[in-house]
Amino acid sequence: MSDKTTNISELGEFGLIDHLTKNFELKNATSLVGVGDDAAVISISEEDALLISTDMLIEGIHFNLMYMPLKHLGYKAVATNVSDICAMNGVAEQITVSLAVSSRFPLEALEELYEGIHIACEKFNVDLVGGDTTSSVSGLTINISVVGRAKKKDIAYRNGAKEFDLLVVTGDLGAAYIGLQVLEREKNVFNANPNIQPDLDGHDYIIERQLKPEARVDIIGYLKELDVVPTSMIDISDGLASEILHLCKASKVGCHIYDEKIPIDSKTSLTAIEFNLDPSTCALNGGEDYELLFTIAQADFDKVKGNPHMTFIGHMTNEKDGTYFIDKNGSAIGLKAQGWNHFQG
Amino acid sequence: MSDKTTNISELGEFGLIDHLTKNFELKNATSLVGVGDDAAVISISEEDALLISTDMLIEGIHFNLMYMPLKHLGYKAVATNVSDICAMNGVAEQITVSLAVSSRFPLEALEELYEGIHIACEKFNVDLVGGDTTSSVSGLTINISVVGRAKKKDIAYRNGAKEFDLLVVTGDLGAAYIGLQVLEREKNVFNANPNIQPDLDGHDYIIERQLKPEARVDIIGYLKELDVVPTSMIDISDGLASEILHLCKASKVGCHIYDEKIPIDSKTSLTAIEFNLDPSTCALNGGEDYELLFTIAQADFDKVKGNPHMTFIGHMTNEKDGTYFIDKNGSAIGLKAQGWNHFQG
Repeated sequence: MSDKTTNISELGEFGLIDHLTKNFELKNATSLVGVGDDAAVISISEEDALLISTDMLIEGIHFNLMYMPLKHLGYKAVATNVSDICAMNGVAEQITVSLAVSSRFPLEALEELYEGIHIACEKFNVDLVGGDTTSSVSGLTINISVVGRAKKKDIAYRNGAKEFDLLVVTGDLGAAYIGLQVLEREKNVFNANPNIQPDLDGHDYIIERQLKPEARVDIIGYLKELDVVPTSMIDISDGLASEILHLCKASKVGCHIYDEKIPIDSKTSLTAIEFNLDPSTCALNGGEDYELLFTIAQADFDKVKGNPHMTFIGHMTNEKDGTYFIDKNGSAIGLKAQGWNHFQG
Repeated sequence: MSDKTTNISELGEFGLIDHLTKNFELKNATSLVGVGDDAAVISISEEDALLISTDMLIEGIHFNLMYMPLKHLGYKAVATNVSDICAMNGVAEQITVSLAVSSRFPLEALEELYEGIHIACEKFNVDLVGGDTTSSVSGLTINISVVGRAKKKDIAYRNGAKEFDLLVVTGDLGAAYIGLQVLEREKNVFNANPNIQPDLDGHDYIIERQLKPEARVDIIGYLKELDVVPTSMIDISDGLASEILHLCKASKVGCHIYDEKIPIDSKTSLTAIEFNLDPSTCALNGGEDYELLFTIAQADFDKVKGNPHMTFIGHMTNEKDGTYFIDKNGSAIGLKAQGWNHFQG
């Protein structure tokens, strides 16, 4: 090791991965796509490929067991991995689960965690095929790897968007972030006075969006039925703004997205206002919605138009025209990612 | 959660995995084999399968950065995963790496870790295709998942050994364990007086076996050349005794293994004696050798006989005849696993 040391927070999560993996080349003919998309792509026949993705969740960084019950944690860990396969327009089939737990967790706690994993496996039709279980020095760490499958011609990469393509988002956004604010508030109330019961009434939807996100496997089915292959796709884990910028950067295009078109549930909007937050900002930067963001060729507009699960929020432009958010007054504001960076703050 | 709580150490690592996954069924037709072997088996065509395995390493549990340089840790993490694919008689092709690090690790430390990963990828001809990098509350956690490939007819499972099959081990055993004893001793000397330089002279082989174990990908090639498919196979991560018992239990057979036939390098024996340890005990219970243990049908004896990388150490018997270690005096001693259990002591 040289004498000079560099703090890893200077690079950010994506910069760090890019830096550490820049010397690695793909040498096996079966390795079609490596680091840099939602999943790696491995050739298994002339027409078919497997998709592989992996995700590590750390107690105290990605989840807080004070308000994230273990059953929900298990469910969410599977759902977020399945979502990565959806983001490639593939179908998840298998997972492996690695778990490190300190001895403060009794067997019954792990049973709850695995019950959540089991419910998610049933829901998303994936098989638990392997894993590793070990002790930890402190806390709980869970790493899930997921294997999915797709026809090579159907795989949607991040880098396929073209100028004039239409930008589509599924479901509604911002709810998971606002749900987290409610949970944080009630945790603070509880910490101040443990005799006060948490007040979660009327917040069921947004709290469920935070604690029990769904992978949009249904969308992959709809796209198949509609005979639409997205020109690019990503799932929304870090916030809409961050994900749009990923697509634009990978595809070398710009974009216009329209504030008034971003789908936000009324319960999300009302609670955001209660917290003095702008609902659009929650949707743009909140993250953890696990909806899908994709682009389609204009020729496919009529196939997608009117689908209740999909909303057009903008279009791709020439790279040199930049990436813009058009607010409700028609003003164009440069789009900035303020998604999560676990190496900062 | 019920009121009753059970300490997870009561089940041990394997009992815990069995318990937590007992309600999981394989539902996808492509999931051929799930939890319980060195790797899961996923069908990709009539003749071919992918093999998937995953392994989590925790600082303070599986490695100590005081004497395990990060470059070696990276190498070893890849090698042990590739070894799991070898243990199925398959060829590893891709890995994903998930990493959690606390901010005390500068970028240069992670560069060292990835240099070790890179060297191992080159050595074992595997491609790094994905990963996840995040911060941790404390210490370093690394999870590697590996993807391998095999013809279905060539896959060696743990449960295929038959009575009268011959038990074969590759390389030599016990060195990694004795190497660890030397490193522990020098660590204690250093802690007592940091001015004393570690005395590792003459221990290169056993220390390298601990710090830089090799996956026996060469053996998979030799078996192919010899046209031998093992009737059962496992890699030696937890010690010879523990692994033999895994094969016997999965295959529903007994065994006789012979002390005098266990391959132990002279440097291992000499250092064991220096530590007042019985070399055979180190081989039986030490672990981390990452050699391969397999059974072959008697009909294949002539093909394997005389191969410098493979040693016959015993044979399988009828299940009801039990599992025995025959010592140098010819006495039969019941074989016991004293391999590592990270949930105890």
